[in-house]
Amino acid sequence: MDLYSGYINKLVEELAALPGIGNKSAQRLAFHLINMPEDKVKRLTQTIADAKANVRYCSECYTLTDQEICPVCANEKRDHATIMVVENTRDLAAYEKTGKYQGVYHVLHGAISPMIGIGPGEIKIKELVERCAREDVHEVILATNSSLEGETTAMYISKLLKPAGIRVTRIASGVPVGGDLEYIDEVTLGRALDGRVEL
Amino acid sequence: MDLYSGYINKLVEELAALPGIGNKSAQRLAFHLINMPEDKVKRLTQTIADAKANVRYCSECYTLTDQEICPVCANEKRDHATIMVVENTRDLAAYEKTGKYQGVYHVLHGAISPMIGIGPGEIKIKELVERCAREDVHEVILATNSSLEGETTAMYISKLLKPAGIRVTRIASGVPVGGDLEYIDEVTLGRALDGRVEL
Repeated sequence: MDLYSGYINKLVEELAALPGIGNKSAQRLAFHLINMPEDKVKRLTQTIADAKANVRYCSECYTLTDQEICPVCANEKRDHATIMVVENTRDLAAYEKTGKYQGVYHVLHGAISPMIGIGPGEIKIKELVERCAREDVHEVILATNSSLEGETTAMYISKLLKPAGIRVTRIASGVPVGGDLEYIDEVTLGRALDGRVEL
Repeated sequence: MDLYSGYINKLVEELAALPGIGNKSAQRLAFHLINMPEDKVKRLTQTIADAKANVRYCSECYTLTDQEICPVCANEKRDHATIMVVENTRDLAAYEKTGKYQGVYHVLHGAISPMIGIGPGEIKIKELVERCAREDVHEVILATNSSLEGETTAMYISKLLKPAGIRVTRIASGVPVGGDLEYIDEVTLGRALDGRVEL
């Protein structure tokens, strides 16, 4: 599109390459950025650069943090013998928000997905196995997503860890709280039935 | 939220302040940026800074361009006696895509909206009036949006320019091509009736 200047076109292109940003939103964003005061634009680009430069993996659980050891792993009061395995840092944050989990985490940074070429070697599975061998771990809770990739990853990890005598569990799958049965898919309903508990 | 490191929180905050980006998308974008290769992040921030530094208003029509005079205004073959008034550069681009307009433009950079404190002085109306006085203009086509703000702006400009003997027109309002009458609001249907043309 030669309707805009080269600088605008290049910016639209870069923005449209980000996830969840289509061509129209990219145009809208580009014009917003150009119309923003100079100091605000500087602050935004600096914030991006700072985050990129300072955020790294926690050396224990591989979550993204700006310290050598993340606050959860550094917390002595947490139960370090229970590890919850999640796909990414956002999932960790989601569980932390519940305030119900007292153990520590292990962040895989993805899930096994042969369709897009992500094998077990691409995510932090080896690191988890090594961590379980090195530390005194009682339970590994698999909290990967309830998707095909998440389930595959959970199965794979379970097969690796069980022979070592570690208790491996999977978070429950079922009807979400507040969910209307009528609108819930059959697979979820089937899982909810299979996982029914005594009252 | 103290679940992420300070750098991540700051980045999420900055991104969530952009238009059309909510808190969840901002988190997703932030993690994407942090996981992006260093050189790609540098290229993105550089592109933003470049666009901000190099893009300015065309001294004729006030569209955003990286030259003193935008390509449309610089084009000798365009009809410089016909000016289409649009709200922003994206609207200009939309009309350029049709390939049907041979005149030049005037970009207001907004519309009159007392609700959010935008008066006639905040947008490029004075510049349009001066331009019409300075140049030999035969027709001004008002192509502001068909919204309350766009209509108000069109009315306001029309009242300013008509006394100077300039022909002021408004783009047609009616049923969009491919639109199903059943789903179109009453105001649009009324306009389509008022604006009916002889076949």
